[in-house]
Amino acid sequence: MSRLTDALAETAEATTRLLDELLAPLEGPVGRVVEAMRYGALGGGKRLRPFLVVESAALFDVPAERALRSAAALEMVHCYSLIHDDLPAMDDSDLRRGRPTVHKAFDEATAILAGDGLLTEAFAVLADQASHRDPAIRVALIAALAGAAGAAGMVGGQMIDLSPERANLDLEGITQLQRLKTGALIAFACEAGAILGQAKPAERAALIDYARELGLAFQIVDDLLDATGSAAELGKPAGQDAALGKATFVGQLGIDGARRKAEETIKLACSRLDLFAEKADLLRETAVFVLERRS
Amino acid sequence: MSRLTDALAETAEATTRLLDELLAPLEGPVGRVVEAMRYGALGGGKRLRPFLVVESAALFDVPAERALRSAAALEMVHCYSLIHDDLPAMDDSDLRRGRPTVHKAFDEATAILAGDGLLTEAFAVLADQASHRDPAIRVALIAALAGAAGAAGMVGGQMIDLSPERANLDLEGITQLQRLKTGALIAFACEAGAILGQAKPAERAALIDYARELGLAFQIVDDLLDATGSAAELGKPAGQDAALGKATFVGQLGIDGARRKAEETIKLACSRLDLFAEKADLLRETAVFVLERRS
Repeated sequence: MSRLTDALAETAEATTRLLDELLAPLEGPVGRVVEAMRYGALGGGKRLRPFLVVESAALFDVPAERALRSAAALEMVHCYSLIHDDLPAMDDSDLRRGRPTVHKAFDEATAILAGDGLLTEAFAVLADQASHRDPAIRVALIAALAGAAGAAGMVGGQMIDLSPERANLDLEGITQLQRLKTGALIAFACEAGAILGQAKPAERAALIDYARELGLAFQIVDDLLDATGSAAELGKPAGQDAALGKATFVGQLGIDGARRKAEETIKLACSRLDLFAEKADLLRETAVFVLERRS
Repeated sequence: MSRLTDALAETAEATTRLLDELLAPLEGPVGRVVEAMRYGALGGGKRLRPFLVVESAALFDVPAERALRSAAALEMVHCYSLIHDDLPAMDDSDLRRGRPTVHKAFDEATAILAGDGLLTEAFAVLADQASHRDPAIRVALIAALAGAAGAAGMVGGQMIDLSPERANLDLEGITQLQRLKTGALIAFACEAGAILGQAKPAERAALIDYARELGLAFQIVDDLLDATGSAAELGKPAGQDAALGKATFVGQLGIDGARRKAEETIKLACSRLDLFAEKADLLRETAVFVLERRS
């Protein structure tokens, strides 16, 4: 699996470098919001979503450097969602990736604005011709990202997560929540690769299916880590979901059941890649990596 | 001026109708965020920005119905900014247009998500081919809107408005703050018309200049209303800026000085429209309307 970890590290580094460039500091009092955007976007993370963009695009022989702007735009949206989710009015988290969350390092108003700024900047990045010379491709990326991030996607998922109904969701409800809250953006990662690669409809659909299952497995593993991990491993307090009385995959299926479910889901994800044959090996390894991750 | 008020009312109604259609209610717990988006976007307002889009596009013989989607997308961004600005961590306003603000009618988390959802949906609307058949035009609209709304535009303006430096801004500083916080989005309104109309660069620049001055006058009049108006006229508490110790145009120039400055600015705005001759008469009337508005 060292080929995968090398590739992951390489894309993570390239994404961070590009984000650093795209989010150039500004002078004066306005500079504070850019500083907070940089804090929220440059603070590490596995950069799994950018990696999925780059590797999906590679299936269609799109070079990594031509996929990286889309990857960075997606990561901006992911980071904005973390900043807003961490706010006191939402999940009220003080710690993220082992450091203070944006509203703790700055303040609430700045965190709200930094999230708004990152979300907006993501679309600015995709709209720029440097992301693809064909405006039809750029606008397809924007449409897909907006669909994945909006009320019928990620924002809707976070709304369910905060709803009174949240505590008593059954397995179907938790799955639906996850598909919106984290799954939609992961699905966009692979869809972006397909759009950049001008994939055939069947190829695009297969990649989206793969990503949906991958996203689901990712969340089940998250629940397992929350139930069994330590704060040091997670970079944030463990056992939060149970403490908040939230229904989880582990709560519904038990630890062994959730582990089996994650394994089955990863198998299903990999089966969606059959039509790419060995060209998709790195995406298959990614699925196994998601299953075995420890933080 | 009844031609103008009729035209304003007509565009306001058409915009609200389109927003109602674009923000279709959703079932289940996710429906709550759409309900809050609708509350924040359908609650009235003059719809000045949509009107500027439609009238700027009309200079190039773009029919109103072909400009309305861009107008609605811009209004979504404007409404999102109001929802987030009203939050307790920001301006902490309980009242907007004579009714409870979104976080009062719902709750803080829902208001944050509703703003996020409206911002995202704005880009989804522009990316859709119904907004213009040419993807190059759609992507130009998206790039311009993202530029106007982001950290180098509206979000940056709100950051300055919340900064410790805010209380002691001089006239130049207040002007800069306003150009970002409200001016950038008003400038985009006219720029959008120019983009939809495939205007020549000089025409596009003239419209942006007009809108910048109009936006500045709008803010000066806002300050005058805040200093001299009543809560009933404003639909929100009066005297907020002074109470918060914020430097304003009125504070810098006095009431008479601010009034003179607004008049001069409106004259300047109108002079930018010379190259459109009488075709821009409605935009000239709009400038006078902004100067004379009472709420």
